[in-house]
Amino acid sequence: MLSNNRISFIRSLQQKKFREEHGLFIAEGDKLVKELLDSQFVVQQVCAVESWIQVNHKLVMKAESGEVVKPMDLEKMSSMTTPPEVMAVVEIPQYTLDSISTNSGLILMLDGIRDPGNMGTLIRTADWFGIRDIIATNDSVEFWNPKVVQATMGSISRVRLHNGNLDSVIGDLNKSVADSRGQLSVYGAAMEGKNVYQVKWSDSAVLIIGNESNGLRPETANLLSEKVTIPKSATSSAESLNAGIAAGILINEYYRNRLK
Amino acid sequence: MLSNNRISFIRSLQQKKFREEHGLFIAEGDKLVKELLDSQFVVQQVCAVESWIQVNHKLVMKAESGEVVKPMDLEKMSSMTTPPEVMAVVEIPQYTLDSISTNSGLILMLDGIRDPGNMGTLIRTADWFGIRDIIATNDSVEFWNPKVVQATMGSISRVRLHNGNLDSVIGDLNKSVADSRGQLSVYGAAMEGKNVYQVKWSDSAVLIIGNESNGLRPETANLLSEKVTIPKSATSSAESLNAGIAAGILINEYYRNRLK
Repeated sequence: MLSNNRISFIRSLQQKKFREEHGLFIAEGDKLVKELLDSQFVVQQVCAVESWIQVNHKLVMKAESGEVVKPMDLEKMSSMTTPPEVMAVVEIPQYTLDSISTNSGLILMLDGIRDPGNMGTLIRTADWFGIRDIIATNDSVEFWNPKVVQATMGSISRVRLHNGNLDSVIGDLNKSVADSRGQLSVYGAAMEGKNVYQVKWSDSAVLIIGNESNGLRPETANLLSEKVTIPKSATSSAESLNAGIAAGILINEYYRNRLK
Repeated sequence: MLSNNRISFIRSLQQKKFREEHGLFIAEGDKLVKELLDSQFVVQQVCAVESWIQVNHKLVMKAESGEVVKPMDLEKMSSMTTPPEVMAVVEIPQYTLDSISTNSGLILMLDGIRDPGNMGTLIRTADWFGIRDIIATNDSVEFWNPKVVQATMGSISRVRLHNGNLDSVIGDLNKSVADSRGQLSVYGAAMEGKNVYQVKWSDSAVLIIGNESNGLRPETANLLSEKVTIPKSATSSAESLNAGIAAGILINEYYRNRLK
């Protein structure tokens, strides 16, 4: 059984402040917890109703501890409107920025993405296409926010997520690509760019997606080799595409070009 | 000033039951209300703080009535965490299904889309690419749900939104396309379909997107001329793309093919 202290502690991890202090995040629900237990992530504790522990007892052994809890206690700790059968307390992984390489395909960078749903969807989309690394500016929504974690549908365990300064990461990438006699291209989604259907994508490539309302910061726009635009219908008065949709279309464009 | 009765009435339109009973929906926020006032929509009432009415008095004349309201009353009526400066009560438009034609490009059909954010994003994406008509099954989330309306970012006023039976709409389209000696192709997003990069899109085309969890219903899958799939990386274990992202990529594929 969980103590009231432990229940309060786990609930506190719904807040960024405590996630940062303890280096832990919360995963909720059957599918997500199973995927995390099956991954390289360190699962500190699984809290689940008795039936879930019984069915998944082998998997639970991969966690540092497993605890049968009452549905009422899950309800206290959960951020979901319908409390899950299972929650897990998981260590936030620390990926090293210097292991980022363009050898594994496109690198995605996010310049101030604020909506948790968009962030989660971006991670899920990256996972689908096999993107290995995402680097977000520090003012982007936190990767380990419960709404982000949920929206990734498990992809949070398969994409390496970094926070950092885009300028310095691109500087380091430029050096390492030049060392192997290649050339790095940095693409950015923008309103007044080259028609994406005419872009000749480089294999060593970075794609930067800007903030939902303001797009790319001027200092970020300065880092680009090419601004790219998804053509809008001549008859449309729409101002922009959703950031996640624009990213999805541009990532697809990169990979369709590679696979051709 | 608004009576308490009127405030209760407007607030009641946050609920589907009352929207359906009265044929009215609510729009919130500066940008959205302005776009609706500038459109063919019938705006029954604009409720705004005094300064907004002053700045926009000409535009307000396009509504049947305009009312200065206290911020406190907007807070009572609003569904947003930060109440807006302006809200509008707007008539739900009735578009006729028999005016749908493939002459204006791709037709988008939605088979049980449930998430309001996804629905709003789908409408916004359709607007960007110039799609004129969307037809959703009756079990899809309602177009006039406040979260859908917000997520469209104004596109709700520019895409014709229908509810209906996909089978019968496709039957009618088939007849009218055959009458003009063309052929209608019905594409559907599916896990086991043709690689989308190899699809030869017809100009007269319908794209059907399925439910977030279950995809296309078997009866809907029967309507397809071709199942299409967005290729997944060989190294990825992701189960699926978000429905809005998949739709965005497929719509982009149709229009890139047309524009080539």
